[in-house]
Amino acid sequence: MKRLILVRHGQSQWNELNLFTGWTDVDLTAKGMQEAYEAGLKLKQDNYQPKICFTSFLKRAVKTLNQVLDAMDCDWLPVEKSWRLNEKHYGILQGKNKKEMVDKYGAEQVQQWRRGYDCPPPLLDGEAATTQRNDARYAQLAITENPMTESLKDCIERLMPFYHNNIEKALKEYDEVMVVAHGNSLRGIVKYIKGISDEEIAGLNLPTAIPYIFVFDDNMVLQKDFFLASDEDLKKAQQEVANQSKK
Amino acid sequence: MKRLILVRHGQSQWNELNLFTGWTDVDLTAKGMQEAYEAGLKLKQDNYQPKICFTSFLKRAVKTLNQVLDAMDCDWLPVEKSWRLNEKHYGILQGKNKKEMVDKYGAEQVQQWRRGYDCPPPLLDGEAATTQRNDARYAQLAITENPMTESLKDCIERLMPFYHNNIEKALKEYDEVMVVAHGNSLRGIVKYIKGISDEEIAGLNLPTAIPYIFVFDDNMVLQKDFFLASDEDLKKAQQEVANQSKK
Repeated sequence: MKRLILVRHGQSQWNELNLFTGWTDVDLTAKGMQEAYEAGLKLKQDNYQPKICFTSFLKRAVKTLNQVLDAMDCDWLPVEKSWRLNEKHYGILQGKNKKEMVDKYGAEQVQQWRRGYDCPPPLLDGEAATTQRNDARYAQLAITENPMTESLKDCIERLMPFYHNNIEKALKEYDEVMVVAHGNSLRGIVKYIKGISDEEIAGLNLPTAIPYIFVFDDNMVLQKDFFLASDEDLKKAQQEVANQSKK
Repeated sequence: MKRLILVRHGQSQWNELNLFTGWTDVDLTAKGMQEAYEAGLKLKQDNYQPKICFTSFLKRAVKTLNQVLDAMDCDWLPVEKSWRLNEKHYGILQGKNKKEMVDKYGAEQVQQWRRGYDCPPPLLDGEAATTQRNDARYAQLAITENPMTESLKDCIERLMPFYHNNIEKALKEYDEVMVVAHGNSLRGIVKYIKGISDEEIAGLNLPTAIPYIFVFDDNMVLQKDFFLASDEDLKKAQQEVANQSKK
């Protein structure tokens, strides 16, 4: 039996301010730190024992993972970080207020950029683009790899090599693996595992900081998947994410 | 030019309680978290940019590193953890009050166990030994590798393969490398780099959470070493460590 634990990062400062984030390296709020710690307590209580962890290059995911590991008394576990687990790049929308963008471009267009499978927002430009190009963490990337915008399709396409070469590979070696990442990179993983269609995947809204468990047999055939939360807590968390989308 | 940054972890809960720690996985205090964060701010202010970091399997070191990286806005940096960077194992003294041990065994004997180069304390036993043997993080170790006590010599001998194979190797590849560890494992590194004798090394008391910088030329010949702190802050920190030793 194999277990894959997915965790979406806790509340970030820009969630709270209702700004598009994407690749902007925004910090967690105090609430985000706390919900991450509580996710770790739940995992510990139910005797989860990942052998290796993966996360993105963005601090809201790294710090969520650090909190989860600390709550589990597993600060020592190996962690591999990759830009391929980053959130979908939101192009020119990054740093912009969601409501203002609806006023400017119309609700339908913004919804397409946010949830259309193959609809990247306009390219990031100006100072923000320069900052990303000069960022040491992306210096290893070829210019063609370093995105200035992404559709959900683009995001999933750059994620999958890492999923196959690192996460799936780890699941062959170990019985339990944890991934802490973002709404859209996690959509990519769930889409692949559960065979969800391009049309339907945008409808999957993962609650933040609630461990999502996938159980496989030794041939990596999915046996079941479930959220590690009471029905009540899960409902509340899903409602919060739905409200976030509506703002 | 190459730079190696050494950081000793911040104040732990057992520093405060005056208990021997060793391999016991004791947490940082709020003060320890804060001094770690400030060490990161200093490194950021002076434009240090490590490319890879190393730390031990003990949470007081891992969390110090997490804090340093967060203050530097470098949460994304790769981190490699190893039991070989752990503190010296204090055997039967672990969890015991330093003053009580002096009352029981005499000041000279305790001082030998603490600072003698080749004087391991008696072996850890009972429940604490069982806990260590069953600890998942040490499951990879051969029984002969999993220590139940260590002299400073033992500690340095198990450290050095990691120093050569991982830290020195990283310094060949990258211009800047950071290690966050413990009083005794860091003694081992400084002993090797500066060629300090077995007799003199115990006299080296590194202040906590003050970055200690080593500058090498490209052939790894040491050019200079210094602490990243004002004279006043350094003096204060060294005094605190000296007081700690006297308690």
